[in-house]
Amino acid sequence: MSLVLDPAAQDLLFREARTANTFTDEPVTDEQVQAIYDLVKYGPTSMNQSPLRVTLVRSAEARERLVQHLAEGNQAKTAAAPLVAILSADNEFHEELPALFPHFPQAKDAFFGERAVRENSAALNATLQAAYFIIGVRAAGLAAGPMTGADLEGIRKEFLDDDHTPLMVVNIGRPGPDAWFPRSPRLEFDQVVTTV
Amino acid sequence: MSLVLDPAAQDLLFREARTANTFTDEPVTDEQVQAIYDLVKYGPTSMNQSPLRVTLVRSAEARERLVQHLAEGNQAKTAAAPLVAILSADNEFHEELPALFPHFPQAKDAFFGERAVRENSAALNATLQAAYFIIGVRAAGLAAGPMTGADLEGIRKEFLDDDHTPLMVVNIGRPGPDAWFPRSPRLEFDQVVTTV
Repeated sequence: MSLVLDPAAQDLLFREARTANTFTDEPVTDEQVQAIYDLVKYGPTSMNQSPLRVTLVRSAEARERLVQHLAEGNQAKTAAAPLVAILSADNEFHEELPALFPHFPQAKDAFFGERAVRENSAALNATLQAAYFIIGVRAAGLAAGPMTGADLEGIRKEFLDDDHTPLMVVNIGRPGPDAWFPRSPRLEFDQVVTTV
Repeated sequence: MSLVLDPAAQDLLFREARTANTFTDEPVTDEQVQAIYDLVKYGPTSMNQSPLRVTLVRSAEARERLVQHLAEGNQAKTAAAPLVAILSADNEFHEELPALFPHFPQAKDAFFGERAVRENSAALNATLQAAYFIIGVRAAGLAAGPMTGADLEGIRKEFLDDDHTPLMVVNIGRPGPDAWFPRSPRLEFDQVVTTV
């Protein structure tokens, strides 16, 4: 084997982890979310710009508002999930850049003075961080149910503002009965990797 | 602690892993890349669309061509890295969808008939997979050096085609002397996570 990561960790994060469609009633605590964040915040982003923002939808009223913006097939499971998070990109991340990238504070204006440039960079880097977050949910022994089947513009208006672009909604909890479909096939190595 | 992932694995993947700027001469083998792929291919994407494609730049001639498209500060380290990969999004991923998502083969045309829709979905999902790939490099005991400081359109013309959108270039190898800068600070939990 060419991997040094412990096989149990490989299973926990990738091989046995699955996108869950049902959950038990066990709550997901703020302490668990804090532990997830404290791990995945170290995942790399361009110039450490760290544009991911997380909105935890905890109140019944907010949950109801969110569910209305989801594709029909995502509504029931999201209404029932122990915790739901909206992951978004902060297009004004550059305001934090002098603190996040202290050895080149000029980057804030030199690279990210234009909003369109910021939006592109925030989308890329917040999406990388969304993947780290999903891995972190699994590292906490929980299952994630990431969803893009949603009216994201509606979610932006309902929960965010013009400076934040929603990327996805993620259900979080312990998997319940019949939590997932059979594993779908993956592409072969030679379909994905070429050498020049 | 709220995480179930082994602390050594937490360190390997997130806490002690760092973006490397120098590497030893030790080669990165095709077997290692295969092992990385065989792990991270299980990371979730929307409808299992799996749009990430990887171009391994192994020949000296190709490496030289690639380096010319990088920002000046990224050139020397990329010229010297044991292995360099171009990560891209396949905007024609829907051709594989009937095989990848067999319980709803109509998704190919019903959801992804329009190129603009495919490009958006491929960018999001290939970027998630790029993050899984970076985690996989670390799982192999190697360091990754992901870079977006590049003329990506030039890289597309030089190495890819109109159906593939390059996302980033990643140096891969064992970290060499003075491989990284001091760890930059991260945002506090309360700067990132809000609750509604």
